[in-house]
Amino acid sequence: MEIKVLKNILEENESWAEKNQKLFQEKGIFAINLMSAPGSGKTELLNQTIEALKNNTKVAVIEGDVATTEDSERLKRHGIPIIQINTEPFGGECHLEAHLIASALKLLDLNDIDILFIENMGNLVCPAEFKLGVHKNVVLLSVPEGEDKPLKYPQMFRIADLLLINKIDLLPHIEFNREKLLRNVKKIKPRLEVLQISAKKKQGLENWMEWIRTHRS
Amino acid sequence: MEIKVLKNILEENESWAEKNQKLFQEKGIFAINLMSAPGSGKTELLNQTIEALKNNTKVAVIEGDVATTEDSERLKRHGIPIIQINTEPFGGECHLEAHLIASALKLLDLNDIDILFIENMGNLVCPAEFKLGVHKNVVLLSVPEGEDKPLKYPQMFRIADLLLINKIDLLPHIEFNREKLLRNVKKIKPRLEVLQISAKKKQGLENWMEWIRTHRS
Repeated sequence: MEIKVLKNILEENESWAEKNQKLFQEKGIFAINLMSAPGSGKTELLNQTIEALKNNTKVAVIEGDVATTEDSERLKRHGIPIIQINTEPFGGECHLEAHLIASALKLLDLNDIDILFIENMGNLVCPAEFKLGVHKNVVLLSVPEGEDKPLKYPQMFRIADLLLINKIDLLPHIEFNREKLLRNVKKIKPRLEVLQISAKKKQGLENWMEWIRTHRS
Repeated sequence: MEIKVLKNILEENESWAEKNQKLFQEKGIFAINLMSAPGSGKTELLNQTIEALKNNTKVAVIEGDVATTEDSERLKRHGIPIIQINTEPFGGECHLEAHLIASALKLLDLNDIDILFIENMGNLVCPAEFKLGVHKNVVLLSVPEGEDKPLKYPQMFRIADLLLINKIDLLPHIEFNREKLLRNVKKIKPRLEVLQISAKKKQGLENWMEWIRTHRS
């Protein structure tokens, strides 16, 4: 019985994801789902990315959090459309679902968006199970989290189109074996593309911007 | 309907948690549920804690992960009983539940345990919703994760009996406002006890050992 409920929820989610996907195609919106553990630097990455894009690209953001508008507040200064989804009123769900994205899309002027970033909840498990209908899933892993994460959260790395290793400015101060991480990534998804960045220190961001440009066109 | 299902799951969980709790009382086992985001240092903390305790205390560990026995392997050298729970075969659940703990307890010699550590899944959301029947909930937050986490994951900090701020050896290399974190903690749970440690660099661990001793007796 329980499994049946779960399956229905996932099926229901997929049909909403397909609707979102069609809408993105129709409106020519390039949509990216940004996922990671709590505190890996998703919001800071968005902060830098929007800064670099906003002069010649129309960017919008959907922010997912259990509670607070902290992340939206951090991005507000860019003057772009931001929709905050809080799941606390809905039982404190630990992931975004496609129907929530569909509701958020209704609040945006879709004719005026080139790139939509969705910042998922800080969680390496459930967000991987719920498709949102985006073009690309991008996973951040920050250096202090350790090299074992691809093995311990395999589904997240399996569905990723790009892995951003963030906070590389901390490498001199931390025991972190880059080769070991890449070996672990390879075990889960052999051809996963990997870029190394420090969002806060603006390192490696040109490769990330190039990745966005390439995949958008 | 969905809400009803969720409520039943939580009620079912509570009754299992009560059974676990009774068993811990009966057998004189002090049980601690260790929770945090992925990569905050739970396993390294256990590693150091077991090292400090094992000569005069009988310690056992239940390890929760979606996949792999990585964490159990790291602790194996101590020669203590370790039960690994992997949730991947059960739909990849993102948290431990009380009935899984009950099953794990059956595999342990409960007459030969003084302290049981349960390392929950790396996740700041759902583990907070499922009681396990332990005496104390301990939450780790590592310095690189940022000061906003108590506001963004309020339930986790509400149910915590102790907050361990980990990786304080990274403070010189990171923008981290300790006072801001403590203000945020206060907003969610005014009297939450807080200790600062670096598990890896063995800083502040004497306070953590003292906390265990005090609360165990």
